[in-house]
Amino acid sequence: MYRVYIQLEMGRRMIKYPNGNTFAVNNAAQVPSRPSPAVSYSKRGMTLEDAINTANTFYLDRQIAVIHKKPTPINIVNVSYPKRSAAKINEAYFAQASTTDYNGIYRGFYIDFDAKETQHKTAIPLANFHEHQVKHLAAIIQQNGIGFVIIRFAVYNESFVLPASELISFWQQSKTGGRKSIPYQYIKEHGFIISSGLIPELPYLKAVDLLIAQHQN
Amino acid sequence: MYRVYIQLEMGRRMIKYPNGNTFAVNNAAQVPSRPSPAVSYSKRGMTLEDAINTANTFYLDRQIAVIHKKPTPINIVNVSYPKRSAAKINEAYFAQASTTDYNGIYRGFYIDFDAKETQHKTAIPLANFHEHQVKHLAAIIQQNGIGFVIIRFAVYNESFVLPASELISFWQQSKTGGRKSIPYQYIKEHGFIISSGLIPELPYLKAVDLLIAQHQN
Repeated sequence: MYRVYIQLEMGRRMIKYPNGNTFAVNNAAQVPSRPSPAVSYSKRGMTLEDAINTANTFYLDRQIAVIHKKPTPINIVNVSYPKRSAAKINEAYFAQASTTDYNGIYRGFYIDFDAKETQHKTAIPLANFHEHQVKHLAAIIQQNGIGFVIIRFAVYNESFVLPASELISFWQQSKTGGRKSIPYQYIKEHGFIISSGLIPELPYLKAVDLLIAQHQN
Repeated sequence: MYRVYIQLEMGRRMIKYPNGNTFAVNNAAQVPSRPSPAVSYSKRGMTLEDAINTANTFYLDRQIAVIHKKPTPINIVNVSYPKRSAAKINEAYFAQASTTDYNGIYRGFYIDFDAKETQHKTAIPLANFHEHQVKHLAAIIQQNGIGFVIIRFAVYNESFVLPASELISFWQQSKTGGRKSIPYQYIKEHGFIISSGLIPELPYLKAVDLLIAQHQN
């Protein structure tokens, strides 16, 4: 069951992906002006993705880290050239990503992670993750990279950096009859809480510093 | 001036991007069967991108490195749901990438690069590179990552790993009246040639080993 939401906010058009992620059309000049269902989310604050992107821009500008969100993979079927100035994609479909959404470099370390938000209070269902993401993170750890997931419990307004090794462990156990979720309490004990900041709002690399310290021991 | 080429090759539909890169539609099931201008490129051998992707799959399967090509960024304007099973993108445009095309981890190092092919014999024009790619590679080097470009001289069937520092140096000189290309001879002397292999055809990480050795000195 897929739904799409289109909203206009601060001059950007946001598209809700089927996977729940929000996609920002960042080239406003290419968006034709026409009536569109406008929904303001401003009172709900930034989405998790917005908060991470804002933090990444902050880190990039200050030469602290170079971490980017990867574009969403798309299978293109038909392209036309209505004007000489711009290729127009007329038919395309969302494709399955083979990796996580974010990667980059920080303190010389290769950084790789995904971000998930849940409305649940006691645990985050493993259904939020995909097999290929877990496998990718396992490959990153095998290569001595820093892999993790940022998990946000919306009801508590709390976000955590959870080492990928923990996610992988729960994932494997679930395959042999183990529980299908990671408890909030477990994440609180084995993850690193991201203390909220002003600029950036989600200074997640402070929590990653603790993960790196653990990694080096 | 943009052109698009669509070809069917080994069951995959290839689309030539305006920037000259080839895009492989990897989900054949989503490509409707209909007449299409079929051009066989098989006699020309693999494209540079194909060769890199094949090498990356080889390295991934053997747990040597985890390096992926990033999806091409696209600005989505209109999405519909003709069937409940698949969201359909009806209008989208190619967006400017803010980074290079490839990154990942190898021997614990953060790896970041772009790949360019030229038909020229004596030099590769700097016009093959974009400001944002050069800036991104400069940021990667500042973070102590391994940044480079793979440059292929098609007429000689030779490919080189050129350290990003060399590209940045030429780029900066060109801004103050310096030459607008990097000479073939210079690349031969300051880059690392990728000796062709059988499996994979382009074992570029062997040349990266030499770059890492230089980096550590």
